[in-house]
Amino acid sequence: MIKQIILDHGSGGKASHDLIKEAFLPFFDNPLLAEMNDSAVFEVGGKRLAFTTDSYTVNPIIFPGGDIGSLAIHGTVNDLAMCGARPLYLSVGFIIEEGLSLEILEIIISSMKKAIAEAEVLIITGDTKVVPKEQVDKIFINTAGIGIVETNCNISGKNAKVGDLIVINGTIGDHGMAILCQREGINFETPIKSDTAPLNKLVEKILKKTNDIHAMRDPTRGGVATSLNEIAQQSKVGIEIWEEALPFSESVLGAAEILGIDPLYLANEGKFLAFIKRDEVDKVLNVMYSHPYGKEATIIGEVKPEPKGKVWLKSKIGGKHLLDMLIGEPLPRIC
Amino acid sequence: MIKQIILDHGSGGKASHDLIKEAFLPFFDNPLLAEMNDSAVFEVGGKRLAFTTDSYTVNPIIFPGGDIGSLAIHGTVNDLAMCGARPLYLSVGFIIEEGLSLEILEIIISSMKKAIAEAEVLIITGDTKVVPKEQVDKIFINTAGIGIVETNCNISGKNAKVGDLIVINGTIGDHGMAILCQREGINFETPIKSDTAPLNKLVEKILKKTNDIHAMRDPTRGGVATSLNEIAQQSKVGIEIWEEALPFSESVLGAAEILGIDPLYLANEGKFLAFIKRDEVDKVLNVMYSHPYGKEATIIGEVKPEPKGKVWLKSKIGGKHLLDMLIGEPLPRIC
Repeated sequence: MIKQIILDHGSGGKASHDLIKEAFLPFFDNPLLAEMNDSAVFEVGGKRLAFTTDSYTVNPIIFPGGDIGSLAIHGTVNDLAMCGARPLYLSVGFIIEEGLSLEILEIIISSMKKAIAEAEVLIITGDTKVVPKEQVDKIFINTAGIGIVETNCNISGKNAKVGDLIVINGTIGDHGMAILCQREGINFETPIKSDTAPLNKLVEKILKKTNDIHAMRDPTRGGVATSLNEIAQQSKVGIEIWEEALPFSESVLGAAEILGIDPLYLANEGKFLAFIKRDEVDKVLNVMYSHPYGKEATIIGEVKPEPKGKVWLKSKIGGKHLLDMLIGEPLPRIC
Repeated sequence: MIKQIILDHGSGGKASHDLIKEAFLPFFDNPLLAEMNDSAVFEVGGKRLAFTTDSYTVNPIIFPGGDIGSLAIHGTVNDLAMCGARPLYLSVGFIIEEGLSLEILEIIISSMKKAIAEAEVLIITGDTKVVPKEQVDKIFINTAGIGIVETNCNISGKNAKVGDLIVINGTIGDHGMAILCQREGINFETPIKSDTAPLNKLVEKILKKTNDIHAMRDPTRGGVATSLNEIAQQSKVGIEIWEEALPFSESVLGAAEILGIDPLYLANEGKFLAFIKRDEVDKVLNVMYSHPYGKEATIIGEVKPEPKGKVWLKSKIGGKHLLDMLIGEPLPRIC
């Protein structure tokens, strides 16, 4: 029984799932919400639309590779793309602390402008609240997004199939480690940059070539380990990941060793996991290699019939260990 | 030139409009956003959809007549209704301070549940962030909403016509005064209650009876005076309001006098201004009288050809004075 909200409840990991199941679903239950995908998909006028929202509270608000503005666009665009939707329109809600300089606000807004141009979406509605000093930390941004599902794929966290291969489009843990290093004042010769990026154009290219993507998820809060667990549970399958196949940059691995952090639990903001029918993987990889955000795409594992709902990591020397969801919150305000 | 964000920028009044024009529109400009209505309306599959967002930061989070949860539902439902849309789906983004008790959270969520049931909308997607203590005050909620426009009316803030009569569905200033009294510890025998309520069902009834609603707006932040100024400017018309016709509860008038506050600038959360073709007003009023949220509906003024973009208040003794937009922010975190 939850008594009060703790940081873990915002981790995106196990505690977040518990909070949703204990406190939210009993009140708001409906079939669309219960799907628990990155976006909810509904029909209007014979078209399938996707709808999603995220609030962004990242600290620091400007970090190597991006800022809270670009993150707020990419995050919501990516949540739409993960359902196979082409993002169309975004809303933006700013909550700003009294005293924020316009200079900082303009850095954030101009970075949002670049992000919407790249993703080819429009911000069509917005809201700005200003709250007195010390009642919010600098700036929080909410974005909600609407996209249109034009693919014939039925992409959902519950549709991963035994035999699917699992592909990720590049290195793991960059965003989380970039934030962590900046927050802790850890400096490398080349600073670790967030991977924050819009994935929708890459996903659209893939979906033009194949109808055999079964599930996709962007491993943000809770990292790759948590997203894989969600899909294993939603699809009632086992997942096996191969340690030697996991792509990490050397700097992320180095920092992870120094800090004693498992990068499989670090947030990514420009990566996605795709569960692909085995025969179609080469075709998908070829599309990915030709796109800036997919150049380093690689197969990291496969879907097994058992043990259902569990994720196993097969180590380099052949052992296997269970990879759980994120349990605690190592890093509040990561996104 | 704005240098830093001040509370006034979140007032919904003149400073908010300046901020939007100076800082946001130059970066995000597009025809849908530039309409500056409560919701943006776009087409998909031959259907017209409305999309809107608001963040709620009200303090205190529980107040006479409602709480931040019901407010977050009503506010977004009403913004959709103001464009003539039937609200369908909402997203909810919670930003919660570490340590909030589950008891408080459940009061809020259960009040949201009641509000969505009454408005007949579904929450289909959501997000929860938890931030460390003192980095946000208790809980902020963002809701975004999607509705479908089924009326033949072309309702927009820019469509008020000379000769239109202006109707409000009940007393003015209740929400703002309820918050103010609770925050300042002012107690009346019967506490002033917020008017927070979903207006969509009443609006749907009206739109079934007439195609001659030209503009609607819910006078939230900035109050009736600010909303009227917005419409006068958008529609390039003059507006005349009759002081003796303005409906106030006695307790709001009394408190306003004690506090030296003009209730025309206080937020309402269950009221709307409708600009109606003169011949159709009786029909509309009859519909309103038969609905709980329209029983006290009344005509408060009319649209004139001149002076364009201005609102005049005709006093009881026959004098006229200019009613400007809200200039300062008397009351941060009102909604």
